[in-house]
Amino acid sequence: MMTKQNLIDYTLHLADNALIIGHRNSEWCGHGPILEQDIAISNIALDYIGQARNFYQYAAQLQGNAATEDSLAYLRDVVDFKNCLLVELPNGDWGQTILRQFFFSTYQYFFFQQLQNSLDEQLAAIAEKALKEVTYHVRWSSEWAIRLGDGTEESKQRMLLAVDELWSYTGEMFQEAGYERLAVSEGYGIDLTSIKNSWDAKIKSVFEEATLSLPTVAWMQSGGKEGQHSEHLGFVLGEMQFLQRANPGAEW
Amino acid sequence: MMTKQNLIDYTLHLADNALIIGHRNSEWCGHGPILEQDIAISNIALDYIGQARNFYQYAAQLQGNAATEDSLAYLRDVVDFKNCLLVELPNGDWGQTILRQFFFSTYQYFFFQQLQNSLDEQLAAIAEKALKEVTYHVRWSSEWAIRLGDGTEESKQRMLLAVDELWSYTGEMFQEAGYERLAVSEGYGIDLTSIKNSWDAKIKSVFEEATLSLPTVAWMQSGGKEGQHSEHLGFVLGEMQFLQRANPGAEW
Repeated sequence: MMTKQNLIDYTLHLADNALIIGHRNSEWCGHGPILEQDIAISNIALDYIGQARNFYQYAAQLQGNAATEDSLAYLRDVVDFKNCLLVELPNGDWGQTILRQFFFSTYQYFFFQQLQNSLDEQLAAIAEKALKEVTYHVRWSSEWAIRLGDGTEESKQRMLLAVDELWSYTGEMFQEAGYERLAVSEGYGIDLTSIKNSWDAKIKSVFEEATLSLPTVAWMQSGGKEGQHSEHLGFVLGEMQFLQRANPGAEW
Repeated sequence: MMTKQNLIDYTLHLADNALIIGHRNSEWCGHGPILEQDIAISNIALDYIGQARNFYQYAAQLQGNAATEDSLAYLRDVVDFKNCLLVELPNGDWGQTILRQFFFSTYQYFFFQQLQNSLDEQLAAIAEKALKEVTYHVRWSSEWAIRLGDGTEESKQRMLLAVDELWSYTGEMFQEAGYERLAVSEGYGIDLTSIKNSWDAKIKSVFEEATLSLPTVAWMQSGGKEGQHSEHLGFVLGEMQFLQRANPGAEW
């Protein structure tokens, strides 16, 4: 039997991932070091807000009770958010932003490829639509990772620091939360072990081209998917939700 | 005889207008009260950054001396910026942002309609390209202005406050700066008096539909086009130029 609450949680997890990394990327909007790339990262941010809307709309429809995409985005608390820790980390410098984008886009790429075949038609349709954008995100971020990794001495050093900073947050993407395990058994969720090898192989190949070495560290952070977040998410939500909470329902 | 410096100044004025209002709109990115409108205002911001790039690229080409779109956007000082004061004002609330957008988009619409016929082919081409976006900006912002003006008691009050706040900044758009006067006499610039009537008529008609009354105040602010800016522009540039100035030429 499908458990509706689990499908809602699964959908919210996907929505929250997109909303939070979209918000992080949007912090570059108007602050990028180069106008052309400022536009690129801002467009990617908008792709994510679009993905988030699709998932939130579906979650709201499942939930009923006057839930809306906006109430789900703006009126839930930190412990209700189910995004991976990776996407809530501060942007760091441009290299760190690029590397996070590459790690996460590659994950999304293989994930949405599978989700297209979900038994849940709505999730399948959203995944299919998002996949085109995500394919571009992977290409864009991997090209940048190679350009910076195999660039100047300084850009290489910064990329190595970014790898150190981010690597331990990559494991959580493949670590099943309770609602993911149930989603798999109910036939609409993705078996994360089935995409881990593809992710590893893509990262390895881009790292080789970028002359970066893969970390050997085994310890991985986790908790975000189950609502245990870093202090960073509180600040993100504080900023993002301020207007809606200060004037509930108002359009200011 | 065409004076090249005047054409550069004229082009920079158009670029600065677009960059600064684009940056202001991008401050809503990830902070809007409604996901759908967050995306709309962010897309408009990206349209402006695109316009700014086109004008800066042309100005850089005219200027030579290793000038680039990025050096013109990120390495000039407050007194070098030639944008109208209207676009540098803080966003205020959603109603004020909408009203500024409506005032400025309507101005751009009639301006670019004329600029399409400029003797300068580059300016004409940029105007023609931008006009499609600007047409949408006018429609979007006028629909919102009507919705808010003719909305609830609170939304109407806020729109009236926004009118008070912004009206005295609308005159500068039609007040010729020195480089505009010369641009007209040299055949590539727009006679601002020729578009003032169209602007007035459009504002009047939307205000009527929005049940807002037109201010009668005659005093108008000015100075921005000639580099005399409010303190607000300093903060905008401080935020926007920080990265490029902290790491000149670096891509972080």
